[in-house]
Amino acid sequence: MLDKVRNDEPTMHALVEEFFRSSFTTDNPLITEAVKRMLSAGGKRLRPRITLLASEACGGNALEHLHLAAYMELIHVATLIHDDVVDNAQTRRGVNATAVDFGNRVSVLAGDYLFAWIFKNVTANYPSPVPHVLSATLADICDGEVLQLRALGDLDLSLGDYVEVASKKTASLFAASARCGAIMGGGTHDEIAAATTFGRAYGIAFQMVDDVLDLTADERSLGKPVGNDLAERKMTVPLVLALQSGNGSFRAHVERFFDDGQDADIPAIAREIDANGGLAATRAQIHLYAGQARAALQPLRPSAAKEQLAALADGLLAG
Amino acid sequence: MLDKVRNDEPTMHALVEEFFRSSFTTDNPLITEAVKRMLSAGGKRLRPRITLLASEACGGNALEHLHLAAYMELIHVATLIHDDVVDNAQTRRGVNATAVDFGNRVSVLAGDYLFAWIFKNVTANYPSPVPHVLSATLADICDGEVLQLRALGDLDLSLGDYVEVASKKTASLFAASARCGAIMGGGTHDEIAAATTFGRAYGIAFQMVDDVLDLTADERSLGKPVGNDLAERKMTVPLVLALQSGNGSFRAHVERFFDDGQDADIPAIAREIDANGGLAATRAQIHLYAGQARAALQPLRPSAAKEQLAALADGLLAG
Repeated sequence: MLDKVRNDEPTMHALVEEFFRSSFTTDNPLITEAVKRMLSAGGKRLRPRITLLASEACGGNALEHLHLAAYMELIHVATLIHDDVVDNAQTRRGVNATAVDFGNRVSVLAGDYLFAWIFKNVTANYPSPVPHVLSATLADICDGEVLQLRALGDLDLSLGDYVEVASKKTASLFAASARCGAIMGGGTHDEIAAATTFGRAYGIAFQMVDDVLDLTADERSLGKPVGNDLAERKMTVPLVLALQSGNGSFRAHVERFFDDGQDADIPAIAREIDANGGLAATRAQIHLYAGQARAALQPLRPSAAKEQLAALADGLLAG
Repeated sequence: MLDKVRNDEPTMHALVEEFFRSSFTTDNPLITEAVKRMLSAGGKRLRPRITLLASEACGGNALEHLHLAAYMELIHVATLIHDDVVDNAQTRRGVNATAVDFGNRVSVLAGDYLFAWIFKNVTANYPSPVPHVLSATLADICDGEVLQLRALGDLDLSLGDYVEVASKKTASLFAASARCGAIMGGGTHDEIAAATTFGRAYGIAFQMVDDVLDLTADERSLGKPVGNDLAERKMTVPLVLALQSGNGSFRAHVERFFDDGQDADIPAIAREIDANGGLAATRAQIHLYAGQARAALQPLRPSAAKEQLAALADGLLAG
């Protein structure tokens, strides 16, 4: 019988990595290769780690839920493969985007196949409501991405609108990762609800951190160009909040940049976002949602896994 | 209580059309609009008609399975939306392709959302194994499309290889349409197996008919350019079979066309495929598979629906 693993995060991370390295394969060799290449380029595996920790925090054994955890990362990978096609991205996690090496056709099909392969396995091996949670989550992710597309360059976007997009596009998969882990770990109704609330709040804060990094990180650590969100006219939360507190000339500058800006203008816009309080106000929001995530854990019984989930939420405050 | 509908095909078709017109909506208005536009452009609705007929042939009531039938068409629509993105298609069913009107980003997301929305509904409302059959089918479709991509321009492709691709890419959804209809109609194990075998054979013959039409139809009735498959270097069954019986100069001509051919060369290649027996040999294969489809119906109890399924198979021989 498998021993319960120690609940320190490096171990959870290593478990997921080892699973992908040794056990991941689909029935289509070309798609397996495309997915493995993206997996080997890195990533923090936060979603599967949250699934495993949520299962242990509810009394389950992480080793029994490695497949389920892997599906959370693979849903994420499939959405990334499709994102890179529609964005014509050249790099992802510092290596060539799938579409660059395999072409758009294979990339669209690889994402579709991966979604289908995940659902095929989940419907065969997991009880209700796990298959429904995962498919509803994928619908939310796509819905959020469409909302985001429609909001491109919309300088009147409110913080509430932003949170709705982030909740669907990003936080829904974190919520589902925690929820499915809690379900399969044998959690009570209250524990499952607590894990879900944790994942939702964590995911919103995570997206906000991601928005900040787009302005403050260097390309090497980011794995993609800095200011990429601005170049795509995305309404990130630092921009939304800077526009709320900024004056008319800042707004006019952003408008001009969105109309016909050049990449060379990005550093100046980024400085103005900071000067208008966008980064500071975003950090306050990150504190708020990370705090909500931590507070959501209250109903869970004391455990090392619960502490690690809390530590993940605290980790969002480091940026 | 709903009356059982008369099992004539126009009625089944009208039922599906009325369902799409009056009842189809998703939670995302932009995606609903994109899908409705594609639905209103036409299509024979063969997959949902087969689901409804299979349910009635197994003793069920078609009116109770309209949602399930609609999902079969919508899976097909979602794959078409993605196909048109990767093919950069300009038209589909005679109207603008989704990607032309809505852009590649929305098209990729619309396809993803539609898959997710279907699985969300199916996992919520249908018992095992229906959700698994549908997700496994989508995996097969993608797998078949990847196989087809890898076989582009491969003049050594055998008839067996071709049938494997057609079985996955096209026939799997017909098989699933019949299978799920039979399951939900309350069919016995043997009836469900019979319906599945019917759908598989029907789908292979259907793909072969589609291949023939690409060479023999006119653009107006086809809804897309004639010889499109040749332009894309697809190994259609008439080409595969013409190469088997043709001489070296025909093969060399096809090779040259695939290397650097122009659209203006397509009519000459099409004539040579016919002259080398490709169309006649394909019609023999269509007879074979349509016959298998008809024969597969034998275990089903006598019914008007069974006769209509047989008539669908016979209809493949008209081309």
